[in-house]
Amino acid sequence: MSKPLTYAMIGGGTGAFIGEVHRHAIALDSCATLVAGALSSTPDRSIQSARMLGLPEDRSYSTSQELFEREATREDRVDFVVIVTPNDSHFPIAKAALEHGFHVVLDKPATHTSAQAQELADLAVSNNLLCCITYNYTGYPMVRQARAMIAGGVLGTIRKVFLEYHQGWLASDLESTGQKQAAWRVDPDRAGIGGALGDIGTHAENLGAFVTGLEAESVYAVLHSFVPGRQLDDDASVLINYKGGAHGVLTVSQICIGQGNGLSLRVYGDKGSLIWNQECADELVVTLLDANPITYTRGGPGLDNDAIISTRIPQGHPEGYLEAFANVYRGVTDAIRSMHGAGEPSRLARLIPTIEDGRRGVRFVECSVESAAKGRVVCI
Amino acid sequence: MSKPLTYAMIGGGTGAFIGEVHRHAIALDSCATLVAGALSSTPDRSIQSARMLGLPEDRSYSTSQELFEREATREDRVDFVVIVTPNDSHFPIAKAALEHGFHVVLDKPATHTSAQAQELADLAVSNNLLCCITYNYTGYPMVRQARAMIAGGVLGTIRKVFLEYHQGWLASDLESTGQKQAAWRVDPDRAGIGGALGDIGTHAENLGAFVTGLEAESVYAVLHSFVPGRQLDDDASVLINYKGGAHGVLTVSQICIGQGNGLSLRVYGDKGSLIWNQECADELVVTLLDANPITYTRGGPGLDNDAIISTRIPQGHPEGYLEAFANVYRGVTDAIRSMHGAGEPSRLARLIPTIEDGRRGVRFVECSVESAAKGRVVCI
Amino acid sequence: MSKPLTYAMIGGGTGAFIGEVHRHAIALDSCATLVAGALSSTPDRSIQSARMLGLPEDRSYSTSQELFEREATREDRVDFVVIVTPNDSHFPIAKAALEHGFHVVLDKPATHTSAQAQELADLAVSNNLLCCITYNYTGYPMVRQARAMIAGGVLGTIRKVFLEYHQGWLASDLESTGQKQAAWRVDPDRAGIGGALGDIGTHAENLGAFVTGLEAESVYAVLHSFVPGRQLDDDASVLINYKGGAHGVLTVSQICIGQGNGLSLRVYGDKGSLIWNQECADELVVTLLDANPITYTRGGPGLDNDAIISTRIPQGHPEGYLEAFANVYRGVTDAIRSMHGAGEPSRLARLIPTIEDGRRGVRFVECSVESAAKGRVVCI
Amino acid sequence: MSKPLTYAMIGGGTGAFIGEVHRHAIALDSCATLVAGALSSTPDRSIQSARMLGLPEDRSYSTSQELFEREATREDRVDFVVIVTPNDSHFPIAKAALEHGFHVVLDKPATHTSAQAQELADLAVSNNLLCCITYNYTGYPMVRQARAMIAGGVLGTIRKVFLEYHQGWLASDLESTGQKQAAWRVDPDRAGIGGALGDIGTHAENLGAFVTGLEAESVYAVLHSFVPGRQLDDDASVLINYKGGAHGVLTVSQICIGQGNGLSLRVYGDKGSLIWNQECADELVVTLLDANPITYTRGGPGLDNDAIISTRIPQGHPEGYLEAFANVYRGVTDAIRSMHGAGEPSRLARLIPTIEDGRRGVRFVECSVESAAKGRVVCI
Repeated sequence: MSKPLTYAMIGGGTGAFIGEVHRHAIALDSCATLVAGALSSTPDRSIQSARMLGLPEDRSYSTSQELFEREATREDRVDFVVIVTPNDSHFPIAKAALEHGFHVVLDKPATHTSAQAQELADLAVSNNLLCCITYNYTGYPMVRQARAMIAGGVLGTIRKVFLEYHQGWLASDLESTGQKQAAWRVDPDRAGIGGALGDIGTHAENLGAFVTGLEAESVYAVLHSFVPGRQLDDDASVLINYKGGAHGVLTVSQICIGQGNGLSLRVYGDKGSLIWNQECADELVVTLLDANPITYTRGGPGLDNDAIISTRIPQGHPEGYLEAFANVYRGVTDAIRSMHGAGEPSRLARLIPTIEDGRRGVRFVECSVESAAKGRVVCI
Repeated sequence: MSKPLTYAMIGGGTGAFIGEVHRHAIALDSCATLVAGALSSTPDRSIQSARMLGLPEDRSYSTSQELFEREATREDRVDFVVIVTPNDSHFPIAKAALEHGFHVVLDKPATHTSAQAQELADLAVSNNLLCCITYNYTGYPMVRQARAMIAGGVLGTIRKVFLEYHQGWLASDLESTGQKQAAWRVDPDRAGIGGALGDIGTHAENLGAFVTGLEAESVYAVLHSFVPGRQLDDDASVLINYKGGAHGVLTVSQICIGQGNGLSLRVYGDKGSLIWNQECADELVVTLLDANPITYTRGGPGLDNDAIISTRIPQGHPEGYLEAFANVYRGVTDAIRSMHGAGEPSRLARLIPTIEDGRRGVRFVECSVESAAKGRVVCI
Repeated sequence: MSKPLTYAMIGGGTGAFIGEVHRHAIALDSCATLVAGALSSTPDRSIQSARMLGLPEDRSYSTSQELFEREATREDRVDFVVIVTPNDSHFPIAKAALEHGFHVVLDKPATHTSAQAQELADLAVSNNLLCCITYNYTGYPMVRQARAMIAGGVLGTIRKVFLEYHQGWLASDLESTGQKQAAWRVDPDRAGIGGALGDIGTHAENLGAFVTGLEAESVYAVLHSFVPGRQLDDDASVLINYKGGAHGVLTVSQICIGQGNGLSLRVYGDKGSLIWNQECADELVVTLLDANPITYTRGGPGLDNDAIISTRIPQGHPEGYLEAFANVYRGVTDAIRSMHGAGEPSRLARLIPTIEDGRRGVRFVECSVESAAKGRVVCI
Repeated sequence: MSKPLTYAMIGGGTGAFIGEVHRHAIALDSCATLVAGALSSTPDRSIQSARMLGLPEDRSYSTSQELFEREATREDRVDFVVIVTPNDSHFPIAKAALEHGFHVVLDKPATHTSAQAQELADLAVSNNLLCCITYNYTGYPMVRQARAMIAGGVLGTIRKVFLEYHQGWLASDLESTGQKQAAWRVDPDRAGIGGALGDIGTHAENLGAFVTGLEAESVYAVLHSFVPGRQLDDDASVLINYKGGAHGVLTVSQICIGQGNGLSLRVYGDKGSLIWNQECADELVVTLLDANPITYTRGGPGLDNDAIISTRIPQGHPEGYLEAFANVYRGVTDAIRSMHGAGEPSRLARLIPTIEDGRRGVRFVECSVESAAKGRVVCI
């Protein structure tokens, strides 16, 4: 194992959810060490959170701006920054990070507009920096297995794709209770134009694109805000026309009482099908025409190398969400090492989602919102 | 147990699928006896099939017309007729049956046009006859349980409905192999304007209506014929706007390799949700807001009377498709007895689907086909 | 379809459970017609029950003895008798039936002692009559598939067998509430020496023997009566040494709260394994060494002829307990026709469980009870 | 978050399986840092493995003896040692560690004999040191939920316990292929007197004891070595008499083709039951008498505090084996901090399995092996 890289975190202080997830995911494989942070939008809480995480005082910054400026001058400057703030600040912070020469790992959805995402993409290219979006569900071994099988032609020509991401936690007016995670997600200023669509729809869109390789041509969307008073969608149904003739049905909802994190994928080709469900992430059911379903399992027989390198422990010993997330980070740190001269990027590095995937996700939200508003099909 | 009624069957001779299903379903509870038939569209095969089923020679008819005319004059005329011919002949045969004074049980989809269905409905009313459509999935005890719970307000106001009916048996060009079941279903002359939509979409639509009581206001549909050369849809995605603001996503497909008879229903209200899957028909999962999922099972605790009276054997001893189908027939024969003076219709009788449900199903197909053709929302 | 046979039922009147199951199962395929009965142990209730079932008055008998005597003299005497009385009367009634020349279908457990079962077996042979035991779980298509695959060597040499039959309905003192089904099952005079062991353990034992073909050599059993005051076992754990070196673990219990009818079978050989669970009866999971699990389904691809002929409707349209039960009856009526000169017995006829299977089940109970009493291994 | 503790690892070098698991588990929550090691039984490979893990040269030891001696003299000596060598060296190494004043985390089974385990227990007490056994399955949130519910009386008096641990990876003669994990596990010199029994049976035994709190009084066991030439058991069936009258059936096997890591627990009391299955570790199904099953999920409603504090991420985002393992380590480091003066042990600290649990596991193996050899019940 090579020496761990170092990273700084922007956002993710006390009370945040996803920041802690990133820290666990990075720690799991000991591939990078947190050494600096600007952990909150308010300077005081930033410092306080840094103290709780045991960061050195001189690298506990009040703001991201301060972090970038000071870290940029250090000899032992961090190798990359992880941005886990609410959506509205993704763009300016990521832009500043790239401008200061830092590799960036950005939570989804990348930005508020696809133009912003494009700007980040261009900036990353011109500065020769990594800009990765943590579409963490691509890190699941059986998702990578699914992708490899489709790429290998096992399913033949893809005809139909069902993508679902159903949660129930916003079925009631949670935002009015002061629940912080709910509050910013339903606020257009912070979340952007998509509610459920931006929060989880982008994950579903990306999962479909990652696994099938299909490109959306146009969408027809219907959005609802079922909880009274809510401004953004908490439920979306999107019909997708893919280039080449395949069709997709993507439904996302956060009012599905009883659903925890119901992300699933079903792909039907002319030679076979596959079904994957995030809540049983270690399984992938594949059925060929006129044959019986075969259940592939993480760590089991017959897997593609992409699945094998994305697993740590044997069949039947469940790996979960954090392990999948960590697989993305293993790829990120591999990619950074490679960019720093450690040779060709590893296979793990080549599987990570980039700002281009992020841009496509934001574009998907934009087109869906437009379609829903106009009541017609909108081209991507 | 009262004396069994008698019935005649139109269609359902050798090589047919659904006719035999009806016969099993009727036999299971010994509620009616097959005593006459015009079992095929060709006179010779009608007679031959009647012989194989052990029908008396004098009630083995060459044509439905002959059957109606002769049976109408018999003192021991059949109590009802079961029509299980391909869709195109449903209307003229059912009409003739009603005109000759016979109660009718008609397979779905009721007719080719909703106007025809309306005509049958009117005729049934004016002749004081029963005209039932075998939407057999309404016969499942746990479907009836779902309906009762929603009617009882357990789920609160319904917001979202997911209806799926996914099969894989038409994923390849089965019709060209001479498979009889495939051949007529993909032929517009015999099947009507809907392919998968008419064949199984009507079941899904009816299941949704039966369980939720919601009324569709408009639909937006996209149809595909994925198998090259196929004229009718083998895949349909329909977004449904219900009166009152609920939204539905109904997807039907016959190209989903690996799916046997994947009919499922998920209903989300503001107080709770329920999930039912035909392939695990004895279970119903209900989750209330902020509570854990409870699995109701046929024969188990806490069931509504509608579920209890629709079951024969204890919990854990699976009942299936034929038992559900038979529950519809128990209702049919109860209804006929009641119309013949045996008192108020039983609860089972009041649960059966009628020609009005059939008409609504045909209308649903018409509007979906129109929406798909025009690329816009169509009012029901 | 040939002309239905006729049968008489002994026991199974009002309030009985299993008699109605037999009647449904026989009716489903219209293979026999109930025309006579002695439906209760008390003459009055026999007559009353016969009336409710619509039996002709002259064939509504007060006692089984009367039935046998009178039917034996009729020209149109019944083809077979179905005996569904409590266990204690199985032997004398079945013996009388065979002595009067009737084919017999007997519910399990066959008799109180294995010697009695042997006597019935001998009598059946010498009188050239059928004596079938309704081990109905052998009628499931996927059980027959399992049997065929093991017989075909798919699993290699069998090493380990897990048989479970767990129910929860006797977890409390139901017998004191007047529940009729509970009362006789826990009464040694009527049930015999085995409680759960006789009632459901014999089913599990037979399922194992039917599917694997293995012969038990010796058993070690531990019995419990967990509900205070209960005389017979309501929980049994039996370790089975099979001839040839395989080992079995059979557990039956009626105090497993939450279990409906949890009968399952897992067989492990040196080349593969199979798992079947009665509550998902249409599925069979088969895994070969170093390969992924394959799910076979009733009506699906790759099935043995024994499974194919035991199914009525397509994949995904669930068949259940009554259909499996009916498969045994299709075999019974085929067997009787064959014995009456209709040619070689059909494959269905050759799959039915006989009094020899019944005898083995009773012997299994006897040995298990002895083992539990003595605290040591007992040879079968 | 407090400053991480430091630890040394004994065993767990290149090619080992469980050492890496421990390292991942410790890293996940950043609760301790690996700073020293004697990673292999051969000095050269120890040093090489240490280099691969990035350990400082002066703390990369050739042998455990060297590690204990040198670390004991350092001011910054490690806080605890993790022992993940093959079973045969557990006792001498753990003894030496305790004698040198180090807290010990020991993989299961604790030792070869229960007397050795007792000696370690005594030593730990007299030296005021922690000696924890990584019965990692006790770390699953829903296992802790199960324990809390039973302790809270939800299930009433426990009657029956089913414990299964079925794997398939040793179904063939893997040890002859040079597979290192297989080789030592089937070698009595290294593994001890139990094969599957020691390797996974101890996990199952401990899971049962942890969750139910029941104490075994006596056992009856049957062992098999199904793979030709194998000396130790690869399949064991153990009937357990618990104090107070409950009964247990524990089956472990490593020849169950198709089973990955099939550890499951079913507990039946007189008021209710619960079922947990390691491969769906986030779920716990609880059924009360005369009620329907309720599915509790990690992160979901209605959980005990023990489950809540053992979880990191929301419902529906799967946590797995490593997270459960990490929960044990969170408890270990909490316990050590507490022993070092950080106040009362946390709840997590009080949930960790100790050498006394380890001793009981070894005793269970000893009694089972004796029972199998003598063919009779053996008192614990």
